[in-house]
Amino acid sequence: MTKENGTFAKFGTIAVLGAGLLGGSVLLACQKRGVAAALRAWSPSEATRRRCAGAVPEATVTGSAQECVRGANLVLVCAPVDQIAPTLRAVAGDLAAGALVTDVGSAKAGVCADAAEIFDAETRRRAADAVGKGAPPVPPPVFIGSHPMAGAERGGIANASADLFAGRVCILTPPAAEETLPAPDAGEASPPASPVAVLREFWRALGMRVTLLSPEEHDTIVARVSHLTHLAAAALSATLAAKPEAWRDLGGPGLRDTTRVAAGAPELWLPILAANRAEVLPALDELLATLASVRDALAAGDFPRLEAILRAAQCWRAAAQS
Amino acid sequence: MTKENGTFAKFGTIAVLGAGLLGGSVLLACQKRGVAAALRAWSPSEATRRRCAGAVPEATVTGSAQECVRGANLVLVCAPVDQIAPTLRAVAGDLAAGALVTDVGSAKAGVCADAAEIFDAETRRRAADAVGKGAPPVPPPVFIGSHPMAGAERGGIANASADLFAGRVCILTPPAAEETLPAPDAGEASPPASPVAVLREFWRALGMRVTLLSPEEHDTIVARVSHLTHLAAAALSATLAAKPEAWRDLGGPGLRDTTRVAAGAPELWLPILAANRAEVLPALDELLATLASVRDALAAGDFPRLEAILRAAQCWRAAAQS
Repeated sequence: MTKENGTFAKFGTIAVLGAGLLGGSVLLACQKRGVAAALRAWSPSEATRRRCAGAVPEATVTGSAQECVRGANLVLVCAPVDQIAPTLRAVAGDLAAGALVTDVGSAKAGVCADAAEIFDAETRRRAADAVGKGAPPVPPPVFIGSHPMAGAERGGIANASADLFAGRVCILTPPAAEETLPAPDAGEASPPASPVAVLREFWRALGMRVTLLSPEEHDTIVARVSHLTHLAAAALSATLAAKPEAWRDLGGPGLRDTTRVAAGAPELWLPILAANRAEVLPALDELLATLASVRDALAAGDFPRLEAILRAAQCWRAAAQS
Repeated sequence: MTKENGTFAKFGTIAVLGAGLLGGSVLLACQKRGVAAALRAWSPSEATRRRCAGAVPEATVTGSAQECVRGANLVLVCAPVDQIAPTLRAVAGDLAAGALVTDVGSAKAGVCADAAEIFDAETRRRAADAVGKGAPPVPPPVFIGSHPMAGAERGGIANASADLFAGRVCILTPPAAEETLPAPDAGEASPPASPVAVLREFWRALGMRVTLLSPEEHDTIVARVSHLTHLAAAALSATLAAKPEAWRDLGGPGLRDTTRVAAGAPELWLPILAANRAEVLPALDELLATLASVRDALAAGDFPRLEAILRAAQCWRAAAQS
C-alpha cells in the first residue's frame, strides 16, 4: 500500500491510546505521511473520541482500549505519565503476538520498570497458555519506551499538528539487551528488523532524529533539559503572578519567551514531576545554587563572578540549537 | 518635508549617539518611517561608524559626539547604561537651545538623577552666560528618560532592524512636573507640545505603545519583568553549561525559548544589573523563594502546594501577551 508521498505503509496497523496533543499529533502525522496500513485511536473521554474522529478522518475510533489494540502491529500509549502503566495493564492480554508497544511519557525509569513487569508476566502467561493448549509458542508483545521531545503549551487534540515532531529529537529507552542496533540499510536480505530498529524507523518516518539512552540516563538528562526548564519558567511566572496585573504587559519579547512553557497544564506536569522526583530534586538544587550565586555576587558587588556566570550562560546558549 | 509614507518629518534633525542594536534600529526606523528632516549618527568605535554609514545611507555619520548633536532637535543616547551620564556630560555644552534629549537605558532612577544634575548645571551655565553677554535667555535643553522594551539576544548594528520597536512598549520616565500630558489631538491652535508629548509622539511614530512611569516605578517593575527574567534564563543556562555538551541538543523547543535571552552580552547586562541592584536583589530573593517552595513541595510530596504554584504560573502566563 503506497501513499501519495511515496512512503510505504510498512508499520501495518497502528493503534494510538490517548488522543491529546501528542496522541492527536501522532495520528495526524501518520495520516499525513502514510506510514500506517490502518490507523486506530481510542481515548478514555467520549468527547475526545468524537473530536478525534472529526480531526483524523483516516483513523477508526474504537469504543475501548482493548478493541483498539487488537491485531495492531504498533501500539502507542499517549497517556499522562501516571496512566501509562495502568493502560498497559488494561490492554496487555489483548495485544497481538509480536506487537511492538511504546509510549510518549516524559519520565522513563518508572514507566519502563512497570512495563517490563507487565510484559514479563504477559509473556509467561502466554507461554503457559500455549503449553496448556499444546499450541506452538508465539512471539510475545514487546515494550520499548519513547520520549518524543516535542510539545506545546496548549494541549489537547485541538492543538495537535501533523508536524509537531518534524526536526525534533526522540529518545528511545530500550532494555539494555536491545540497545545494539543492526547497521542501517543492511539490505532486504537482512534478518527481520529488531523492535528497536522498527521503532527508530517509525519516529524517523515522522521526521524525528532518534537517540538511544537507558531509562535512567534519560531521566537524569531530561530532568535538566525539560523538567527543570518548566519549573524555572513556572517559578518566574508564579513570582510575577503575585505582582499587579498591569506589570505583565510591560514585559518585552524576552519575558514572553522565557515564560512560554509555564502555560502548560499542571495536570500533565504533576505526574511527570512525581515520576521523576529523584532527578528533578537535585536538578532544582543545582539551579537554586546557581541563582544564589548570582544573588550573592550581585549583593557583594562581585562583578567578575557575576560576569563568569553570565558568560557561561551566554556561551552555552549561543552554541545551542537556534 | 514629506516622506513617501506620508509621515511629516516633524522631529527635525535627529541625532543618535551609539549605533549598536538599539541605536542602529532607531536610525533604521527613522529612515524607513521618514520622521526626521535630517538624521545624524555617531559611535565611539570607528569600525561601528563605518558599518553605520553603510547600513543607514540617509544618516550623516559624524566624527565626534559633539558634532553629532550640534543643531539637533532630538538627541537619543543609545549607549550602555553606565555610558549614558558620561555621554550626556560630554555633549551638554553643544546641545541646541531647547533640544530634547533622551536615552534607551534599561535602568532609569540613576540615569535620570544624573541627567537632572547635568542638565540643571548646564541650564545655570547658559543662563549665567546669557546674563554676562547681555543676551536674551534661550530655552535650555531638556532630558526625559526612555526605555523601549525591545531588544534581541544578538547585539550590534548588524542585527538592527527598522521594525524592532513596532508593537512594543516604550516607558517614558519624565520628572514629576512633566508627567501631565496635554490632551492628544488638541488641534493646531494649541500651545507648543510639551517635551513629553513630543517624545511620546516620536516613539509612537516608530510603532510603539507609550507608558509613563516615575524612574523609581520603572526600576521596580523592570527589575521583575526584564532583569529577573534575564537572570532566570542565565541561571538555567549556566546550570546546564556545567553538564555534558551532548545534553544541550536533547532539549526541545521549550528549552530553546526559555533560555533564549541568556545569549545576551554580559557587557550590556552587567551595567544594567549594577545600576538597578537595589531592585534586582529583592526580585532575585522573590524568585529564589518561589523556587525553594517548588523544591520543598516536591521533596515533601506536597502535590496540592506544587499544583497551586504551577496553576498560578499557568493562569498568569495564559493571560499574558501572546
